[in-house]
Amino acid sequence: MEPLSYARSGVDLARAKTVKERITRAVESTFVPDVLRPLGFFGGFFAAPGSNGTLALVATIDSVGTKVLIAATLGRHYGIGVDLVHHSANDLLACGAQPLFFLDYFAAASLEESILEELVHGMTDACRALHCSLIGGETAQLPGIYQSGTYDLAGCMVGVVSTDRIIDGRHIAAGDLVLGLPSSGLHTNGYTLARACLGLTGERERDRQILSEIPVWSQHSLGELLLEPHRCYYPLLRPWLDHPGLHGLAHITGGGLVENIARIVPQGRRVEIDATTWTVPPLFLELQQRGQVPLIEMYRVFNMGIGFVVIGEAPFIRELQQAIGEGWIIGQVTEGDTPRVLVRLGTDPELVLTSGS
Amino acid sequence: MEPLSYARSGVDLARAKTVKERITRAVESTFVPDVLRPLGFFGGFFAAPGSNGTLALVATIDSVGTKVLIAATLGRHYGIGVDLVHHSANDLLACGAQPLFFLDYFAAASLEESILEELVHGMTDACRALHCSLIGGETAQLPGIYQSGTYDLAGCMVGVVSTDRIIDGRHIAAGDLVLGLPSSGLHTNGYTLARACLGLTGERERDRQILSEIPVWSQHSLGELLLEPHRCYYPLLRPWLDHPGLHGLAHITGGGLVENIARIVPQGRRVEIDATTWTVPPLFLELQQRGQVPLIEMYRVFNMGIGFVVIGEAPFIRELQQAIGEGWIIGQVTEGDTPRVLVRLGTDPELVLTSGS
Repeated sequence: MEPLSYARSGVDLARAKTVKERITRAVESTFVPDVLRPLGFFGGFFAAPGSNGTLALVATIDSVGTKVLIAATLGRHYGIGVDLVHHSANDLLACGAQPLFFLDYFAAASLEESILEELVHGMTDACRALHCSLIGGETAQLPGIYQSGTYDLAGCMVGVVSTDRIIDGRHIAAGDLVLGLPSSGLHTNGYTLARACLGLTGERERDRQILSEIPVWSQHSLGELLLEPHRCYYPLLRPWLDHPGLHGLAHITGGGLVENIARIVPQGRRVEIDATTWTVPPLFLELQQRGQVPLIEMYRVFNMGIGFVVIGEAPFIRELQQAIGEGWIIGQVTEGDTPRVLVRLGTDPELVLTSGS
Repeated sequence: MEPLSYARSGVDLARAKTVKERITRAVESTFVPDVLRPLGFFGGFFAAPGSNGTLALVATIDSVGTKVLIAATLGRHYGIGVDLVHHSANDLLACGAQPLFFLDYFAAASLEESILEELVHGMTDACRALHCSLIGGETAQLPGIYQSGTYDLAGCMVGVVSTDRIIDGRHIAAGDLVLGLPSSGLHTNGYTLARACLGLTGERERDRQILSEIPVWSQHSLGELLLEPHRCYYPLLRPWLDHPGLHGLAHITGGGLVENIARIVPQGRRVEIDATTWTVPPLFLELQQRGQVPLIEMYRVFNMGIGFVVIGEAPFIRELQQAIGEGWIIGQVTEGDTPRVLVRLGTDPELVLTSGS
């Protein structure tokens, strides 16, 4: 079996990046002065009208990706609604913002009421827990666009942050430490590669059989492990958002540790991550082994056990780690030009992942 | 050939309505006191943070629907980007709100750079014209969910309105007149039925041939007529939003005149529309004839030439009509309980469409 990469399994991240750069210019041509930051952060920033420059609205739009194909195969959709809300709240959190409201977009070839209701209950339960109001949505039946038996779920969350407490990484300084917080699983990224690793093809009965396998290291089936909802870090980190020692937050989504941390590292700083400082959960190793995926590719696509990252002054990071009772100090900040982020996977100098590479 | 209806062509509006009611309760359970209106309006309302109750944010999420299948068949995508922005701006306009910012979500089985760039140019040109900033977006490659060669484009727009100038129809009174403004075509609704009327099946070459036909009443092909971008009414109506004689605004989207006007008619009022007061554009009649669609079904699905509706005091409506130099007075407001909206298609008492039926 040949090794699988994200490009081979259907998602070409490098090509996606080129397009992204080309369209960034067109998008930024729409910016009015109230847009407070360029593109590239975890949310878009816009001066809150009527707040005299004291508050910024932060907005993010996203979907759950091909995790919905696992949900559709197993007929379990509640967690997908939770995933979308948690993913969005984590994006706002990474900007220092508190969620205010959410809107969802559900589309499928035909409307299956029971699926929609499960999704809505997942979303509304997650929204209520965050005091985030679901103020709108759209349900589209689009035959001819969606494959039968599948659907897509996207959502837009808007939050608020004091303009003087926007967290955008600009204060990240040499000597800062990096705290990695554990993920609950794949969260919502890498499912196209994960499906390829497991040999899931869309043949429902065969896929169900594969997903019902219980790995030797677990008491749960592969399906349950893959559907574990995206963890929300907002309740955990909210009390710390005003701490002056907190310099940067990164939500580890598509592109992994290296590309997501790179979004917030300012010029002249480098974040060096030592991947031997935490234990990669066995689910990732199971996928790697089954798909014979190169280790570097794994770290480029998956969160590998780190779902969220906090960067700050050393005493603050140690205080935070002790107070919340979890997480690993996975790296530190140095002076340096490109690459902005460097992840060492071991002592082998070949096993180094750098941002923008 | 049997008559076509929306249910037969793949979109079951009645079934969709039942689900909608069931999930409304779950959604409203997430509302905090800052949510200023219930669901059902053209946007969701949320008190703008930091504005001391003087401003409301208004947000809407939507997609372009199966119009993208016509665009994909003909390889013309720019207008789809325009459609999405104009559709969203019209929804905000119907609440009295000015657009602030927009986020888009593009998803397909695989990323076609040229399509994405055309869409982005359509969106950014339309956004710039509205001084609306495109502050974020997501591009998702989701093999297994989308049919090859197709895509979906959704977007969320957030705007602002003074809380004392929110337009929600509550001041609609007996004696008010209804001004209908011309649409530029199907806008973004009814394309599943339109495709069925024309016999478009997704076989590209055959569909292209059908779409290249030039009807006797036009100098443009069916494809060009169907891809005509959704008209934006914001620049036209913006100067009138503070007029105290303006009582209600409705964006005529899926559900047609009857269901969209019903969204803003308060208890004890009835809007009576006389469909003989304007000339239905020939494109709608062409579709009706080809699909042998019952007239009532046509008015339930399509805008039938009226893309936006203004309801207000008679002197204001006459002043507005004269000042903007277009539109027809298509109806009036009376006292009445259900139905909230009644559309008479002619003198035949059978040809009456009512909301909620």
